[in-house]
Amino acid sequence: MQCDRVWTNARLATMCRDGADRLGLIDKGVVASLDGRIVYAGPADSAPTFAGAEVHDCEGRWITPGLIDCHTHLIHAGNRAHEFELRLQGASYEEIARTGGGIVSTVAATRTASEDDLVAGALPRLDALIAEGVTTVEVKSGYGLSLEAERRMLRAARRLGEERDVGVTTTFLGAHALPKEYAGNADGYIDTVAQEMIPALAGEGLADAVDAFCESIGFTNAQTRRVLEAARKAGLPVKLHAEQLSNQHGSALAAEFGALSADHLEWLDDEGVAAMARAGTVATLLPGAYYFTRETRLPPIAALREAGVPMALATDCNPGTSPLTSLLLAMNMGATLFRMTVEECLLGVTRNAARALGMGGEIGTLEAGKACDLAIWTIETPAELVYRIGFNPLHARIRRGH
Amino acid sequence: MQCDRVWTNARLATMCRDGADRLGLIDKGVVASLDGRIVYAGPADSAPTFAGAEVHDCEGRWITPGLIDCHTHLIHAGNRAHEFELRLQGASYEEIARTGGGIVSTVAATRTASEDDLVAGALPRLDALIAEGVTTVEVKSGYGLSLEAERRMLRAARRLGEERDVGVTTTFLGAHALPKEYAGNADGYIDTVAQEMIPALAGEGLADAVDAFCESIGFTNAQTRRVLEAARKAGLPVKLHAEQLSNQHGSALAAEFGALSADHLEWLDDEGVAAMARAGTVATLLPGAYYFTRETRLPPIAALREAGVPMALATDCNPGTSPLTSLLLAMNMGATLFRMTVEECLLGVTRNAARALGMGGEIGTLEAGKACDLAIWTIETPAELVYRIGFNPLHARIRRGH
Ligand SMILES: [Zn+2]
Ligand SMILES: [Zn+2]
Repeated sequence: MQCDRVWTNARLATMCRDGADRLGLIDKGVVASLDGRIVYAGPADSAPTFAGAEVHDCEGRWITPGLIDCHTHLIHAGNRAHEFELRLQGASYEEIARTGGGIVSTVAATRTASEDDLVAGALPRLDALIAEGVTTVEVKSGYGLSLEAERRMLRAARRLGEERDVGVTTTFLGAHALPKEYAGNADGYIDTVAQEMIPALAGEGLADAVDAFCESIGFTNAQTRRVLEAARKAGLPVKLHAEQLSNQHGSALAAEFGALSADHLEWLDDEGVAAMARAGTVATLLPGAYYFTRETRLPPIAALREAGVPMALATDCNPGTSPLTSLLLAMNMGATLFRMTVEECLLGVTRNAARALGMGGEIGTLEAGKACDLAIWTIETPAELVYRIGFNPLHARIRRGH
Repeated sequence: MQCDRVWTNARLATMCRDGADRLGLIDKGVVASLDGRIVYAGPADSAPTFAGAEVHDCEGRWITPGLIDCHTHLIHAGNRAHEFELRLQGASYEEIARTGGGIVSTVAATRTASEDDLVAGALPRLDALIAEGVTTVEVKSGYGLSLEAERRMLRAARRLGEERDVGVTTTFLGAHALPKEYAGNADGYIDTVAQEMIPALAGEGLADAVDAFCESIGFTNAQTRRVLEAARKAGLPVKLHAEQLSNQHGSALAAEFGALSADHLEWLDDEGVAAMARAGTVATLLPGAYYFTRETRLPPIAALREAGVPMALATDCNPGTSPLTSLLLAMNMGATLFRMTVEECLLGVTRNAARALGMGGEIGTLEAGKACDLAIWTIETPAELVYRIGFNPLHARIRRGH
């Protein structure tokens, strides 16, 4: 078989088998790539002959698909460590707000930052993810809240994929919070998002998807619907921040629009689960935010599992509620805090995370035809990737075959 | 002033001021070392002249004392990731035990491991700590449970300090669990620990302190007392695993022996707090174990704070209840889960951690006369070290001036 690189003497977690062993474990495996795509991933003893390829002996290490962080707010300016410090000293939300804290401070800092500033600020966070084997990352806008500032955020997000060897998908989250210019006029802001921002940014090819914050402190179900309608009109797939702090029936709404994912979901009810299952919408769970905000209500993992809703895990990296830059730790939190199984955690940052980005045909599993994005780990068993806390056993990271 | 190295243009968190600002922050600071000791750490504008020294421009970065992980079980063999996996699948403790899991499996693996095996297995864990600026680490025995195997663990622990440029203090924890040879005869095992192991290992200089697991599933208060008496007789300071799962009044017992620290403390009562305060015993809090075991009872932070008991934070790195190898994350957990302040978290891995090791005169603060162990961070404020989750902003780590 023609190929340019081969990884031999490896154990594989292909993530692409159905049935009992959904991790698709292969004990003596080999992966071969040609022009950045996998041409073979399977048992060594049934592999074809690979002539003339560059051979990498994995010495028994494990290979998984490159990890995928499918929900981040990596692009943002400002620093909210001091707000965290004040809160631990007992400051109330009102006091924090009076000192200029909260999302308002991130919006103010992001609006005054240049595209270069935004890129430079995000790179250390992105590098932390990359160091753990992440090969694809989703990045949302949502701290600009004007066409010009949201565009700058999305451009900065695209730039991350040029500055580093990583796949970046962008999501327009104009309906993240109400900018002060529209105080008391949320419907007016949604008009702007739906009628001006989405058509413009879609036209410029800057957004791969559209998201909104459907919440008591965000936008109503009806306002969110208008955002999703505008996305549909612009030909963009949708995602939704839903049921994080209360049940707004956002997940059912998202499912109605065939959403790629509904995210957070602590307050998701049975009807929402059923709607997501019918629509094939991925449940993206964000245990970092649950942990950092000291939430006590768990997302309905058992119901999602029972209904066959695919579950993804992501960092939700953001300065206010989840300053988390470790997808390995998101897996440990998924297991420790949400009682997800090892299998669910691993599928959640590979196969199901790919699906949450509409890229299930392209990345997320080790199989012929997919992009050759690999993470090679010095571990004895894939469970170690979930079990350890604050430990990075990455041996090598391969993107597009290199 | 004579010195060989100087770090200029730095912001310092010296950790050595009393009163309101216990972090001892200095905005325009300089640190100078001679032969591995700090000869000056303070404001640049009142610094003496440093002639002929090697100058390092910190470009405004922050310097803290090198971090100290004052409670670890870094040395152990075996792998309990699979046990974690089974438990998430719903396996009971009995089922785990039947498949050979639990501490018994770690003891079995550790007993059959050579000293070289133990060192090799621990180095990746140690390296993870070092990568975050740790310059001193405590390592306990306690998975050997025979004189020969405990000695091997302590030798391996000492070896870590030769293999890497890090300070290692060793703690003999023979009274960690009951070995199968003594089933039904805990008092007989304590005889062996107190009369044979402690005198032998103290005589060989292998243990810097003695620890025990005073717990319903460990050893009784009376048995623990005999261990501490033997330590006193051997001239060794003591520490104690106390009040983790129930109130055995271990902390008061430890205080009676002038213990360096009592560790865990979720079930500590007011009398225990008062006894620790009187004795100057450090409260070493281990939020990684609290998190991983899904404990819900919090240690009495407010009472400890009120009584002026110094609080330390450590990873408790161990395969069964805290597979944590990030002291930065232990700080975030101390803040997020225990509501410790930023100041308390930072003092907990520097000044108070040093005191928990009986090394308060040697390390843990930036002041003249102390060892020149530094961590240099690319951060805007020390609070960032606590606030971020899974992010390592270490710029450089200096041990003994280099
Ligand atoms: Zn989010
Ligand atoms: Zn311990």
